Amino acid sequence: MLIDDKETIRLLTQIGADVLKYLRNNEPPKVAVPLRTTSNIKYDPKYRCYVLAGKYKVRSCGNIKHIRKVAQLLRVARFCKDDLIKQNKHATLRELYYISESWGKGLKFEEQAESNDMLEDIEAMISKPREALKITPEDKGGVYGDLTVEYRDPKGRKQRINCLNTPDGLAVGPRLDEAKIIECNASRVIAIETGGMYDRLIEEGAYEKFDAILVHLGGQSTRSARMLLKRLNQEQELPVYIFTDADPWGMHIAMVIISGSSKAAHINKELAVPDAKWIGVTASDIVKYNLRTDPMNEKDIKRCDELLKDPRYNDQRLRKEIELFLKLKRKAEQQALAKYGLSYVVEEYLPIKLREFET
Amino acid sequence: MLIDDKETIRLLTQIGADVLKYLRNNEPPKVAVPLRTTSNIKYDPKYRCYVLAGKYKVRSCGNIKHIRKVAQLLRVARFCKDDLIKQNKHATLRELYYISESWGKGLKFEEQAESNDMLEDIEAMISKPREALKITPEDKGGVYGDLTVEYRDPKGRKQRINCLNTPDGLAVGPRLDEAKIIECNASRVIAIETGGMYDRLIEEGAYEKFDAILVHLGGQSTRSARMLLKRLNQEQELPVYIFTDADPWGMHIAMVIISGSSKAAHINKELAVPDAKWIGVTASDIVKYNLRTDPMNEKDIKRCDELLKDPRYNDQRLRKEIELFLKLKRKAEQQALAKYGLSYVVEEYLPIKLREFET
Repeated sequence: MLIDDKETIRLLTQIGADVLKYLRNNEPPKVAVPLRTTSNIKYDPKYRCYVLAGKYKVRSCGNIKHIRKVAQLLRVARFCKDDLIKQNKHATLRELYYISESWGKGLKFEEQAESNDMLEDIEAMISKPREALKITPEDKGGVYGDLTVEYRDPKGRKQRINCLNTPDGLAVGPRLDEAKIIECNASRVIAIETGGMYDRLIEEGAYEKFDAILVHLGGQSTRSARMLLKRLNQEQELPVYIFTDADPWGMHIAMVIISGSSKAAHINKELAVPDAKWIGVTASDIVKYNLRTDPMNEKDIKRCDELLKDPRYNDQRLRKEIELFLKLKRKAEQQALAKYGLSYVVEEYLPIKLREFET
Repeated sequence: MLIDDKETIRLLTQIGADVLKYLRNNEPPKVAVPLRTTSNIKYDPKYRCYVLAGKYKVRSCGNIKHIRKVAQLLRVARFCKDDLIKQNKHATLRELYYISESWGKGLKFEEQAESNDMLEDIEAMISKPREALKITPEDKGGVYGDLTVEYRDPKGRKQRINCLNTPDGLAVGPRLDEAKIIECNASRVIAIETGGMYDRLIEEGAYEKFDAILVHLGGQSTRSARMLLKRLNQEQELPVYIFTDADPWGMHIAMVIISGSSKAAHINKELAVPDAKWIGVTASDIVKYNLRTDPMNEKDIKRCDELLKDPRYNDQRLRKEIELFLKLKRKAEQQALAKYGLSYVVEEYLPIKLREFET
């Protein structure tokens, strides 16, 4: 389980206990916050993702400039512990910002960037994603397939649902984040960039044909969707395949799932799925299937150049694909496969891809 | 029911039958397509939405420049009738564009704008939204509350689900669009702009406290969400309340639900919910609740000026709110109510609002 309320409460309580220890020793309290700047990020070949390198910033109440920040950090930690986790409630980053107004002039945040930043400090201190602190992102994405979860409804009662018993899949939201996986009759997971393709795969019975759980990412994956993929991979030992548009942005949607994002190095180990595979649509597929394409613009090309320099793309297959994108200077959408008919993606394209990656 | 497959098939078949009649009379076939330009849009006080004014463009195969367009129109109509509706399948606008490649050089669309436009021509000819043609939008939004629907799963089997039996509500997608409402134990509908506020209302039990169906719009409402609101209003006779951010964009999200969009005048009568009410967050609420605000930028102010000139805003209450926005030059988010605590919106704000609109 990625979210373990008792463990999160223990970690948050420890922050307060450390402060108390300083006070009992008549010393000014200090908190050590892992640095999240690029200078403190390194690619970890063992975990196969970006992680923090081990530098800290120390905020000491002995320094008058730090007092407010320390107090705000403790106040946010208490809010998450007492007002959210213990009350079985959730809030958004935006709500955290607004609710700070009721904390009085000394503690309230002047801008949302401040409260966002403070929350990331706490994430980094306890090495847990903000979902564990019950600060949840906007809902996005969905899941379909033979997956039964047990969740708590808003009244705290346990309920179970199988994703197949919904018209268009389950929405990925705060209660699904915390649901237990009770049963999962599937052999693999297919994560899909666009809603249109997700609907296509549901409609064409891909979940049954490939014995798959289908996850709709809705573009760049939310952390909720990444947590779901991580759990299906780790708890259920399912391989994860990522199916995106044929462009550097689609590749990178896959890479963030595989190796984590550089901005979230402090929690990547919790979220990355290093064995997940980007199956396409690849640059080679554009050629092989003679897909209808659009020309790449300057931003697309610049992005390809950036990816070539990124240590996460230190993989021969991926580098070849980026180089082919740069040669073609063209990109394609997942839906371009529809030129061979609506069923083609399920009847022809995906079976070839899955064979390729599973043998 | 907004979507009635038999009726749609009848209307599409009629387009072909009319063409055949011309051919049998040895005349070049013609199709009459309602003009969708602004010159052909009028505000209809009876239906309380923008509707088409009655002008047509006639495409005749007697004119060599029109032949391709007529053939494409017939091809798209046949595709929707035979390959989608009759096969119980759906496609996105994007897939329609790509699939046209398999129709050969004369019929394929050069750009997606062309195929989108052609589909709107057919919508206008049969006065049905594209969902009736099984061309579905990206999934967005969700629904929660004591609402039981019967839908067809991808295998065509009928299934039922109550939205309360899901962790974060049902995703709004193509199968929900076509679901039958079997039971709805609610007295009203609350449509919500942001996912964060939707989650808040679920978590605080607003569906029970207000005996309400909660609909998450995800910003500017999709047509699927509008269809759902229309049906809850029309079939279940529930009043619809729209709850948005306090800015001209939020007001207009509400207005498109209430009076339809000028771009979709050809189907507004099918989608508009003229009795729906925008309950806030209003400009007056910013003052009354002393909410934390952001300054309006030039675009916000320009938008307020535009709304004042729009016939849909010919309502004293709405005009006063726009004028107050212009005076304050400030805007606020729904979440700003959290300054009084996370429960405030459900314990205090919404009860006052609902009393105001229901007496």
